[in-house]
Amino acid sequence: MAKTEKISPLAPDSFPDFPEIPGVWLATAATGMKYHGRDDLLCVSFPDGATVAGVLTRSQTASAPVDLCRKNLATGRRARALLVNAGNANAFTGRAGEQAMMSTVKAVSGKIGCETDEVYISSTGVIGEVMAAEKITAQIDRITEKLSPRGWQTAAQAILTTDTFAKGAVRQANIKDVPVKINGFAKGSGMIAPDMATMLAYVFTDAALPQNILQSLLKTAADKSFNAITVDSDTSTSDTLLAFATGAAGSCAITDINDPALTEFRAGFDDLLLDLAQQVVRDGEGASKFIEITVTGAEDGRAAKAIAMSIANSPLVKTAIAGGDANWGRIVMAVGKAGEAADRDRLEIIIGDQKVTEYGMAVPGYDEAACSRHLAGENIIISVDVGIARGSSTVWSCDLTHGYIDINADYRS
Amino acid sequence: MAKTEKISPLAPDSFPDFPEIPGVWLATAATGMKYHGRDDLLCVSFPDGATVAGVLTRSQTASAPVDLCRKNLATGRRARALLVNAGNANAFTGRAGEQAMMSTVKAVSGKIGCETDEVYISSTGVIGEVMAAEKITAQIDRITEKLSPRGWQTAAQAILTTDTFAKGAVRQANIKDVPVKINGFAKGSGMIAPDMATMLAYVFTDAALPQNILQSLLKTAADKSFNAITVDSDTSTSDTLLAFATGAAGSCAITDINDPALTEFRAGFDDLLLDLAQQVVRDGEGASKFIEITVTGAEDGRAAKAIAMSIANSPLVKTAIAGGDANWGRIVMAVGKAGEAADRDRLEIIIGDQKVTEYGMAVPGYDEAACSRHLAGENIIISVDVGIARGSSTVWSCDLTHGYIDINADYRS
Repeated sequence: MAKTEKISPLAPDSFPDFPEIPGVWLATAATGMKYHGRDDLLCVSFPDGATVAGVLTRSQTASAPVDLCRKNLATGRRARALLVNAGNANAFTGRAGEQAMMSTVKAVSGKIGCETDEVYISSTGVIGEVMAAEKITAQIDRITEKLSPRGWQTAAQAILTTDTFAKGAVRQANIKDVPVKINGFAKGSGMIAPDMATMLAYVFTDAALPQNILQSLLKTAADKSFNAITVDSDTSTSDTLLAFATGAAGSCAITDINDPALTEFRAGFDDLLLDLAQQVVRDGEGASKFIEITVTGAEDGRAAKAIAMSIANSPLVKTAIAGGDANWGRIVMAVGKAGEAADRDRLEIIIGDQKVTEYGMAVPGYDEAACSRHLAGENIIISVDVGIARGSSTVWSCDLTHGYIDINADYRS
Repeated sequence: MAKTEKISPLAPDSFPDFPEIPGVWLATAATGMKYHGRDDLLCVSFPDGATVAGVLTRSQTASAPVDLCRKNLATGRRARALLVNAGNANAFTGRAGEQAMMSTVKAVSGKIGCETDEVYISSTGVIGEVMAAEKITAQIDRITEKLSPRGWQTAAQAILTTDTFAKGAVRQANIKDVPVKINGFAKGSGMIAPDMATMLAYVFTDAALPQNILQSLLKTAADKSFNAITVDSDTSTSDTLLAFATGAAGSCAITDINDPALTEFRAGFDDLLLDLAQQVVRDGEGASKFIEITVTGAEDGRAAKAIAMSIANSPLVKTAIAGGDANWGRIVMAVGKAGEAADRDRLEIIIGDQKVTEYGMAVPGYDEAACSRHLAGENIIISVDVGIARGSSTVWSCDLTHGYIDINADYRS
């Protein structure tokens, strides 16, 4: 179990039913590396010909597994296996960490019967402790023998760390009348920030998509989902989002990213990534409220996102929302500190459905009680128009509570 | 009294003794605007010929008083009065707020007998509520009649909001054998971030310094002090640092910023600003530990400061320190997310006097118990070398505790 046994109040009611995706087989095992009484190792195998795309942390101190994924993606080769462990991030472990990782890669490629650069690795957990690779390699025989097309929820559970619930989403779409499936699961609840987090997410589809198309879809979807969420503004060394496409559905191969045949798939794919990303925020460490922030009227989309993230990351905004306090002056402050153009005297702020400011000051007689009622709920919606141009952006965050301090003031003990 | 009655555990033992500065007169009064049973209004008057310099918030939603200070500074005129109120920031109050402010400016200039653009204003408190200017103007007769060269500690107390102690510092220096005084006081404990905060600070000297020299000294000193501290990464709409120089000491006028006669003064001036800035951090909302972070080996000074601030602002680093947890992996994470060049494989981290990492991994057998003992203290020292070039920077921060949440989750109630 993750350290925090209490399930987030913002958790969805249940984990969705996952369909099988032919040729995508999963299994989990327990290494005992950090957790006891739970599985913490996930192995996924892919059929011949599966393409792979990835979006990885921009951290300057990326982990060995992130380096490996980046290198493998660059080869343009297919993917045959994914191995994920929870409990040790294998980040900042130098040459020893790289060797530890490679011993697990070799164990997997030997059992699966593939090249080492067809194996993708993710590790999440404490940074800076050398990983006991032998605890993983000791499980490889067992885990590869257990591989089966079922067990998606078990897979999603095995990769959790401080998460309080497993995060999964499924979608279906037609590509020229051929139905295809999209399955995804993710983990992450702290160190979540713009441009990823200790966030691991994996998407699997039986659509036929060349690597360049899959990469383009993934990058675009990530910018609107995983790169538009924040819990604490911290960015992990290990963030990894990978997508695998087997082609087994028999849909026609897409060669142009603008092909209209891709429209429905793209919508489902985008929606699934957003669903997963929002689940990560809903499991934000200590979160009691889910916050959606939309900024309009900015210079451009980039500026709008910068302002929205400034609001979403502000400890003062986040604590005010935790306290159900309609202290919108802090939103003004956060707009101001973003460093992007904003017309103070045209700034409009809407909380829930109450417009609280316009023309650079409070709306006379606005209904603060209605604001407070909105803030007393679990889903907080804030809209800000900064009065410059037409750039807009929506991001998602959570509040900052005593729970965050409890979880993080002594994570390792 | 400020909301939090408990004095910060990091508070200095006592407020220093302030010498009089001829012609600089002070008085305080109670407006009853927000606080009861305490003075919340400060007036300072200056003799003819006092120069003034200022460093103001970079917020795009700056308050009316900040706009006024910026406008007055641009005139190059002398300063005759300073009026500071606590309890209402008069920020984001539109035309009504500007009118409210101007009515206080006129009341002061009328009593002091000066032009309106020789009056400097600061306001601190809640953002977005129109200020009841009549509560201030009703006190102007009384406060201007009470002006005296004493009462510095009372002045420093009158401008506090969530602060738990008054912040003051004094220095002396010779300019070509003429002794001059430097007195300073400040307020601020939340919304403190790079490039200022709800931070108000005022420095007074009897040295003779033309405005351009004073401005240059102030800007340079601010970059190494008030712009090198952070409590919560939030930036106020009201940050104001002003310096006033009367020339009454009879020191020779300085016309060249590089004049060696300025060396001793500059050192005292810089030191006083750093002292005040560090007091602000020591009173950081909920702070239980004072943290000094030095980054070396960066591409240049700017990059070093960006990395240092990334560490200083990281909620995960700050909560780990609050918990006395030597979880230095989070420092690695914060270096990585700064987006500045850093050589993961040459990264060195020193906590207290323990080197915990070198060559991109943990120092084998480093003494974690010694780290933990250091982190159990109140003064935490962290040094990081990122192995790129020779840029360095030092910044100051505090830990993130339950106290911060307590103070901010319901500030207005």
